[in-house]
Amino acid sequence: MRAALIQMRVTDDKEHNLDIAAKHIAEAKSNGADMAVLPEMFCCPYSGKYFPAFAEERGGRIWSRLSRCARENKLLLIGGSMPERCGDKLFNTCFVFDETGRETAFHRKMHLFDIDVKGGQRFKESDTFAAGSDITVFDSAQGRFGVMICFDVRFPELARLMALDGAQAIIVPAAFNMTTGPMHWESTFRQRAVDNQLFMLGCAPARDESAEYVSYANSIAADPWGGVTARAGSGECVLFADIDLQGIHEAREQLPLLSARRTDVYSLTRTRLGEQHAK
Amino acid sequence: MRAALIQMRVTDDKEHNLDIAAKHIAEAKSNGADMAVLPEMFCCPYSGKYFPAFAEERGGRIWSRLSRCARENKLLLIGGSMPERCGDKLFNTCFVFDETGRETAFHRKMHLFDIDVKGGQRFKESDTFAAGSDITVFDSAQGRFGVMICFDVRFPELARLMALDGAQAIIVPAAFNMTTGPMHWESTFRQRAVDNQLFMLGCAPARDESAEYVSYANSIAADPWGGVTARAGSGECVLFADIDLQGIHEAREQLPLLSARRTDVYSLTRTRLGEQHAK
Repeated sequence: MRAALIQMRVTDDKEHNLDIAAKHIAEAKSNGADMAVLPEMFCCPYSGKYFPAFAEERGGRIWSRLSRCARENKLLLIGGSMPERCGDKLFNTCFVFDETGRETAFHRKMHLFDIDVKGGQRFKESDTFAAGSDITVFDSAQGRFGVMICFDVRFPELARLMALDGAQAIIVPAAFNMTTGPMHWESTFRQRAVDNQLFMLGCAPARDESAEYVSYANSIAADPWGGVTARAGSGECVLFADIDLQGIHEAREQLPLLSARRTDVYSLTRTRLGEQHAK
Repeated sequence: MRAALIQMRVTDDKEHNLDIAAKHIAEAKSNGADMAVLPEMFCCPYSGKYFPAFAEERGGRIWSRLSRCARENKLLLIGGSMPERCGDKLFNTCFVFDETGRETAFHRKMHLFDIDVKGGQRFKESDTFAAGSDITVFDSAQGRFGVMICFDVRFPELARLMALDGAQAIIVPAAFNMTTGPMHWESTFRQRAVDNQLFMLGCAPARDESAEYVSYANSIAADPWGGVTARAGSGECVLFADIDLQGIHEAREQLPLLSARRTDVYSLTRTRLGEQHAK
């Protein structure tokens, strides 16, 4: 499987962002990609003041454009994320489309990003967004994958539950910043991959030093041994990662971690709300 | 708090190992350490053929020597690990002594190390040892700490449960090897520290290229931001790590992770066996 991580530059022009995304998705396809991944908030600057204005409903223009891109390029499209309006709530949502343009899954960011690092990054996502409550693992022609959004990757419970649910790769549209990125981006992706013996893919917007929130970029692919198999720099690019999903079995056989869990001593489960919450 | 990680060379002479450990513990104390940590199997080569012969009961000679070292040097001693004989079973056990020489906790390795990496390390610890079933968190004059042994650190559930139980540092006598060490040692310690926003200390035997099982060494201390604050090389040494446990509160306030867990979506708990298992 060839994955294309589209590290695009996000502007405050929604139409332009959609055009750039479409151009890169076509470029991904022409380079043999089976799956294209957009970054978190690929169509909207990462800022509380833009989220409500750029928000759209499921089935709206952004959604339709993504569906068309998937269908026209015949690939699995992990549609980064967008501000989704649903009733009187806003969510930070990733829509997933198969190669026919059908929506096969969506994930609403479930851990909202509220931080205030002394001398560093400050952000309070929960001022604007409501949190999703579903763990998103879906089947595709390429394999069984989990999707989480940015801050979700901070929580080992979520990646573990996805692995136990059969995810072979976890795909993370994200936008770490210049405080948390250098400190935590790489080791988080590597360690989630090692602990769960699966592939981790992180796709971030290109760095724009003039933006209110500066993305660390550095889109990344890590394999089940924790090796970094592809990594972008700070600029706009399409990063390709060739993934042999069979690598999971090899890792799990040689270094049995998932099967060595002491489920007689600790128990990690989805709770009722997570399971029952209707999409 | 000053911790001393005693990266000692382990030989096949038990008495010599005990003497070397005692010498390093005194050296730690004379350099202001409040806590000394010995490596996994500090008194016995890491090999299935030595474990039964070197095994002793709780309260035996090794145990008594450790207790005396703690008392004479008036420090908290995390006694690495030793092959412990209990009835007809052997465990890989860490005994902990306070500054009066009293045993305040012990941990029996709960995830046994069975791996077979193609072209790399092979080991089957479960051929010799039985697994413990208790999660070990204890109070001391220095703070509240968790203890796990080597392969235990591979399992994010265990570190998480210790953090939720109030552990401020997790201390890990360990012996990664030349396959898993370069791949996973540093990122595992860093990421457990970041995810749980506490201190992680790993203490390994010095590297001995002539040994059957070659320790990666590289004893390490990581802070709640994932920074590596102390790290040894491959040779014999006492590595000092100065730790300000207040750093935990700062990290948790600025980057709220533990409090942002979605316990309404997932649940991580100790199961009955783990809680009821009598020590």
